[in-house]
Parts: sequence; structure tokens; C-alpha cells
Amino acid sequence: MYNIKCTVAYDGTFFAGWQIQKKARTVQEEIEKALSKMYKTRIKITGSGRTDSGVHALNQVFNYHTPAFIPENSVTSGLNSLTSDDIVIKEIEYVSNDFHATKSAISKTYEYLILNTAKPSPFYRNHCWHISDYIEPGKLEKILKLFEGTHDFSSFCKKRSIVDKPIRTINTTSVRQIRDFLKIEINADGFLHNMVRNIVGTALHVYRKKLNPEIIKDMFNAKDRSAAGPTAPAKGLFLKKVYY
Amino acid sequence: MYNIKCTVAYDGTFFAGWQIQKKARTVQEEIEKALSKMYKTRIKITGSGRTDSGVHALNQVFNYHTPAFIPENSVTSGLNSLTSDDIVIKEIEYVSNDFHATKSAISKTYEYLILNTAKPSPFYRNHCWHISDYIEPGKLEKILKLFEGTHDFSSFCKKRSIVDKPIRTINTTSVRQIRDFLKIEINADGFLHNMVRNIVGTALHVYRKKLNPEIIKDMFNAKDRSAAGPTAPAKGLFLKKVYY
Repeated sequence: MYNIKCTVAYDGTFFAGWQIQKKARTVQEEIEKALSKMYKTRIKITGSGRTDSGVHALNQVFNYHTPAFIPENSVTSGLNSLTSDDIVIKEIEYVSNDFHATKSAISKTYEYLILNTAKPSPFYRNHCWHISDYIEPGKLEKILKLFEGTHDFSSFCKKRSIVDKPIRTINTTSVRQIRDFLKIEINADGFLHNMVRNIVGTALHVYRKKLNPEIIKDMFNAKDRSAAGPTAPAKGLFLKKVYY
Repeated sequence: MYNIKCTVAYDGTFFAGWQIQKKARTVQEEIEKALSKMYKTRIKITGSGRTDSGVHALNQVFNYHTPAFIPENSVTSGLNSLTSDDIVIKEIEYVSNDFHATKSAISKTYEYLILNTAKPSPFYRNHCWHISDYIEPGKLEKILKLFEGTHDFSSFCKKRSIVDKPIRTINTTSVRQIRDFLKIEINADGFLHNMVRNIVGTALHVYRKKLNPEIIKDMFNAKDRSAAGPTAPAKGLFLKKVYY
């Protein structure tokens, strides 16, 4: 059996997220259908993780197994012609059989995009969070840095999704201003459900309400979602890179 | 009567163009409905010109008359709350009564966006023309420069739309590379139907087929749409600025 690693970008706007579900359009289902058509047999794929409804990916990674050999370029172009144009297959790679898109991942980087202008943009309406009051990147970054390190992220996880071990390590955070945008990047060994959106929403909340950043320690200690700030909208979130 | 000049940006993807028509969603209709609701009386607007289905605007201009005074900021925020988020009202200005969005226009600048990368982007799928073979900006600009000046643009006008006097003057053209994009800009005293798209499509045709650029003179002389090159897709076209 061949093991194939695939890197894919998608606009999450018109998808009910990555994972297959009944009666909703999902990225996983659209790719599996295309692959199954191409290989003329049922193909199942394993993503590096799920993304929620409205969340985008610059480089999501998945893998699948197949006994049939098709050259990399043919898989790429075949898949791109069989999927709709909000999915773009970027790279296909034959990898060793022990590669597993979920389990082999060492860390992931998410990007969160804020449009920081007086007026919103009709062109970016599905791809950023528009905030009209000026955000100073350096100050926001200082707040975000408080999330770095190993913590129990229960307060920053969707309530009904809390897992057994809600401990994660955030390796790096950054805020860069690029023209009218603020790009927030967070790299961690793993993310709980809604973790990036809850961290971004909370950091912005602390910034805009001029709260003492020390409050973030209390939020961690509470281990309760209601202790932290609001959830930033899905449309600003991009899975940027999965590291193996 | 007050005369109000309004600058608006819109994503043309889900509109059947600017101009009102039966059984189709248009920008003009959506704005007129919002204004009529706001002023509690039927308001008609005059655009600087039409844009076709799928064509976008960074700064389209329209004007309308009303006996009621509403402060500029209230008109802006009112309209933005009453229109959907693919329309963004950017500026409202009270102007003298002789201002007419169509007739007062001296020139217009259109921008045409090409994504010049090996793979398309799911995020820009409705906002650029994706061309995977490398385009050298300087060479393309040289071809475009041949369109500058005063010409009979019949060969670059949608066949059934040829007007009485198809003479227009292109003042400036430029091609700039901005990261993965090529931005083509054309300023002219006016544009015939599909003129920018036909010029861009023809320039790219001449470039990619390595034709002698002198052929453009023959195209002008033919005064026949079939003598020129193909029409570039609507989705890459943006009305950038109207000069008064």
C-alpha cells in the first residue's frame, strides 16, 4: 500500500468544517468523493485535525492509503479538477507507511487575521475579523505572550469539548501589522476546540477593555470557559502549517 | 433639494452587475432599497457608469437628490446597516446641485488583477484571473502602452453594445507586480462595454502567443470585435476610481 501525504488550501466559508457530517457540505467529504472517483474505489482520508465551520486552511495536511500508483502531478491536477474551486490541492507526496497526518504532527501554526480599518471591506468579509478601533500590534502581542508556555487550557476550550488532558504548550505567538491587517500567529503542540479563537477573543477583550493582563493568570486558574473572554469569529482563522 | 455624492465598494461576485434589472440581484437596487427605507420615500440613484455581472468596485460613485437632511455619518452607517456585507459605503458628501455622477466624470481608472502563481488560490477565486505561466510585467506593460492615446475602440467593445462614437482616450496604463499578483491599471476618459476586459484579454493573448505587438494597430483599424483577442474574465476587474 502506498501512503500519500497531501497539502490542501481551502476557503472554509461555504463548508460546515472539515469533518464529514450528514446533510452538510464538508471539505473531507468533497475530497474523499474526488479521490474515490479518481481511484475507482472508496478512499478515506485522515486530516491533521478538524477545522470548524467557516475556518480556512492555507496548508491543511491529510493522508490516505491506496494500492494504486498515480504520479504526484496527476493526483494534484486530477483532484483539483474534481473538487470545487474553494479547495486547492497544493502538494502530493509519497511518504513512508508510518506517516499519520494526525499522530505524526509535532506542532501546528494557526494564523488569525484582523482587518483594522475604519470601514470593513466587502472583499475580505469572509476572511478576517473587522475591528474599526485602532489596535496597537505591540501591545496586543504583549498580552498574547502571556499565553505562551505549558498550561491547562480548559478556560479556552469550547465547553462541551473539554478533553481528558487539556494541557497544551504554546511555543510562539506573534502579531504583525501588514498594511491594513494584523496577523496573529500561534504555534502550539496541539490545540483544543476553539482554542485559538478563544485566545484571540480574550486577548482583544483584555486589550480593548484595558484590563490588567495579570487577569489571564486567573483565567487559566479558573479552568472554566466562562472565566475567559469571548470567542473570536471563525472567518478570521486560518490553519497555516502543520509541522511533522 | 440636497445633492449627495456617495462612494461605495462592492464585491460583484453575487450581483448581476450594477444596473437594476428584473429578477436579478443588483447593486443599484440594493442601495436604492436601503436609501428609500432610510428616507421613507422612493430614492433613485445615478451611478458613474454600470459594472457588469461579477465585476467589482473599490470606489464606485453615485449621486441622488433628497429634500431631507441627514448628517453624512448617519447616512454612511445607516446604509451600511441596511445593505448586505458585500456592499460597503465608504463616503458620503453633500455636493453642489450641478454634480452628476455620470456626466461630471472626467476620467476613470480600472484595475485588473491577475494571480500569477503555479496554483490558484481558493481565497481569491472570485477576485482575480489566475494565470499559471509566468508573465513578465515589463513586457506586458509594453504591449498595454500601445493602447494609450485616442482611438476608435470598436474592436474592443462588446459587439451588440457599439455606440455612436466609439472614440475614447486612454491616458495611462501600467502593470505592477505586487507579491504574487499583477495589477494592471488603465485610466481613460471613458470606457465602452467590456473595453478593459477586451484590452487585457488581447494584451495577454499577444504576450502569450508571442505575436508582433504591431498587430494591435491592425486590430484598431479593423473596427471589428472579432479582429481582437479574447475577453478577460469579469472576476479580475475592479472599478478603482472615478475622477471629477
